[in-house]
Amino acid sequence: MSQLPASQFRVIDLIRKKRDGGALSSAEIEYLVAGCTKDEGSIPDYQMAAWLMAVVLRGMTREETAALTNAMLHSGEVLDLSFLPAKKVDKHSTGGVGDKTSLVLAPLVAAGGLFVPMISGRGLGHTGGTLDKLESIPGFRVGLPVPEFHRVLKACGCSMIGQTEKVAPADRKLYALRDVTGTVESPYLICASIMSKKLAEGTDALVLDVKTGSGAFMKNEEDAIFLAELMVETGERMGKQMVALITDMNQPLGRMVGNALEVQECIEVLHGGGPADLRDLCIELAAWMLFLGGASKTVAQGKHLSEEIIASGKAFDQFRHMVELQGGDISTIDDPTRLPGAEHRVKVLSRQTGYVAAIACEQVGTACVILGGGRERKEDSVDPSVGIEVHKKIGDKVAAGESLCTIHCHSDAQAARAKTLLEESYQIAAAPPTHKTSMVHRVIYKGEH
Amino acid sequence: MSQLPASQFRVIDLIRKKRDGGALSSAEIEYLVAGCTKDEGSIPDYQMAAWLMAVVLRGMTREETAALTNAMLHSGEVLDLSFLPAKKVDKHSTGGVGDKTSLVLAPLVAAGGLFVPMISGRGLGHTGGTLDKLESIPGFRVGLPVPEFHRVLKACGCSMIGQTEKVAPADRKLYALRDVTGTVESPYLICASIMSKKLAEGTDALVLDVKTGSGAFMKNEEDAIFLAELMVETGERMGKQMVALITDMNQPLGRMVGNALEVQECIEVLHGGGPADLRDLCIELAAWMLFLGGASKTVAQGKHLSEEIIASGKAFDQFRHMVELQGGDISTIDDPTRLPGAEHRVKVLSRQTGYVAAIACEQVGTACVILGGGRERKEDSVDPSVGIEVHKKIGDKVAAGESLCTIHCHSDAQAARAKTLLEESYQIAAAPPTHKTSMVHRVIYKGEH
Repeated sequence: MSQLPASQFRVIDLIRKKRDGGALSSAEIEYLVAGCTKDEGSIPDYQMAAWLMAVVLRGMTREETAALTNAMLHSGEVLDLSFLPAKKVDKHSTGGVGDKTSLVLAPLVAAGGLFVPMISGRGLGHTGGTLDKLESIPGFRVGLPVPEFHRVLKACGCSMIGQTEKVAPADRKLYALRDVTGTVESPYLICASIMSKKLAEGTDALVLDVKTGSGAFMKNEEDAIFLAELMVETGERMGKQMVALITDMNQPLGRMVGNALEVQECIEVLHGGGPADLRDLCIELAAWMLFLGGASKTVAQGKHLSEEIIASGKAFDQFRHMVELQGGDISTIDDPTRLPGAEHRVKVLSRQTGYVAAIACEQVGTACVILGGGRERKEDSVDPSVGIEVHKKIGDKVAAGESLCTIHCHSDAQAARAKTLLEESYQIAAAPPTHKTSMVHRVIYKGEH
Repeated sequence: MSQLPASQFRVIDLIRKKRDGGALSSAEIEYLVAGCTKDEGSIPDYQMAAWLMAVVLRGMTREETAALTNAMLHSGEVLDLSFLPAKKVDKHSTGGVGDKTSLVLAPLVAAGGLFVPMISGRGLGHTGGTLDKLESIPGFRVGLPVPEFHRVLKACGCSMIGQTEKVAPADRKLYALRDVTGTVESPYLICASIMSKKLAEGTDALVLDVKTGSGAFMKNEEDAIFLAELMVETGERMGKQMVALITDMNQPLGRMVGNALEVQECIEVLHGGGPADLRDLCIELAAWMLFLGGASKTVAQGKHLSEEIIASGKAFDQFRHMVELQGGDISTIDDPTRLPGAEHRVKVLSRQTGYVAAIACEQVGTACVILGGGRERKEDSVDPSVGIEVHKKIGDKVAAGESLCTIHCHSDAQAARAKTLLEESYQIAAAPPTHKTSMVHRVIYKGEH
């Protein structure tokens, strides 16, 4: 009898404790999480809402954040992938515009000898989602049952699916409540939400791509760093190998924004081509995944290995294999012009001559949503064929009348609002920007690499 | 079209605004209060709970506090007592142990030519309630309908009733939610709760008796002063004459704790007797009521007038008349030994010789609750006959074996727990306390008196 049974806690005492700036014990946090999920209705929403607001305003200790993550993780199914004969690694991005690295990373790292069990989400708001991109491949099934997920993983080293109802139900419950009570914006709650879902994949290592800039959720770099450090520490406390890269999201990543267009661009990268920024970031993230998973001794070696794998064609083959195993039409992978496409083109022209000084990147994402390529509400459906092809990026020279980007759509009328938004999102200056920001702003990793 | 219709507000925006430390407009606050009461269910409890917690942790401006009070006040019926031919004044106490001044003040101030329309509450926790005390008078009806309340007021200048369902329903709704979400302890919310109910009485002036000390809700004097200033300013913003007295609650007020016992003690005061501390506080509060209501030119004159009224027997007559009009058995007023009484006595003896250094006053209140003289839950019923007679107060000399207080109860067994609590509540020291604290610690009033 070293401690009271959990049912001895009173919710009101736990709310008051957090309200007054105290730290809850792991048992207390487990009680709250279990009470609002497993035993449906045993803790009413209004009590959880008060506690969540107290957390937003009082914060949490590192121990509390880990305890919350752990309790949410164990509210549902945790995959056991110990039967796989090598390390399991994954990457998670906090979301951006044209952020399509997952489609390159999974097959690339799998070709490096590790396993990549990737459970992804759908796009919401101005950011795209990996599942929507994958579903632009005709026939591709993101809803594999667990045994089939296992089978694909064993066969080709990677598999990409959506989150099942059984993973972290506490997160779904709490997120729905946070969404309507102004309690989304807390790094502690964001950390627990992301990490509880990612740790349910049963991976050994996790590379975090924390975006910052005009197209990211975290516009402020300090906020991004704070969240990244919190997630790294939380993962480490739970025995995972962790790194976070703070990466630039002040303009779309690569040149394509839109589901099928992004798949097409990923295939270019897998073939050794594609835009430099996208290729470089993929190599960087893959290197960290290979390093954390033990497939390379240093990150530099991991980069070298990644480049070799791409050059050898193995990364592309692995992707093609995965698409095939998950029911996708591989003829669209072999010939990306067969992916869903919108026949109509609308050019967005520059009104000035000069240099691209800045891009309001969130607006570019919103333009894609307006075209039907993303969703404003969870229940919206997505048009895989539409999107934006970005010709001019920050620092590029542009002449008046020259095309900044091209809208892929079904008619002029459909493109009207998106076109205005895109025109407004470009800032043109007489002189080129004085300094170029690097893609990776900072690496958060405790150790040698 | 100077402003948007209220329905244009989004609750989530109002929660976020308060969360981020902003101030809500009156229209925004009215929208929240109306949404959680009038249009039942239009704002769910979990959103109100999040907003309430944000208020607890971020506070409110004076303007917001007044707007909240006003919105809660107008959520229900506001009495119109303008037909009465003199000023209407009232007193509100934040609650204490043996705090029985209302029963003296209403008839005393009415006898001074003002009207006292007093709407009171029941006891909860360690503090007693005016309604429970009045109901120990056989037949006394606290549930008068408004027309009858008017009639009694006109006939004898005062009437004492309970809060109807129609007064400030927003407060009832919000208080129930605050009670279970750890959001009771906010001076802004406490202020709005008290003031919305008190202002619904339609009085011109209000004297606040804000208790501080071991038997008060506000143990800390600074908290009491903060709340008092907030209530005074809120009342003034709403056009009321206001004063707050910060008064001592480090020991029971008077000598009696328990419903019928307290009525008996009030009758002594109305006859010109009773314990000095109770008598003095009644005179002080009555003086302020008379002064604010314009029945005396200064507070000093108000004290003099109060003493005269008591000495003349008019205050007692007024009380007797009110009891009669509200259906009470006046034979118990004429002969208080006829009030409900418990036949059994248990003495609480001092184990030491010395001086009373301190009394854990909340425990004395709790002892009375344990005897059945108060309630732990709203739905509990109260035994009017039981209570505690306090013989020794702070600074009094006491010999080992001498009686500190006497329990009025029905059996030794019933008194056992209360006896232990009372024994523990007394702190005896070898030397007398070095300084005596005064009953009125501070007066909060803007102006000459």
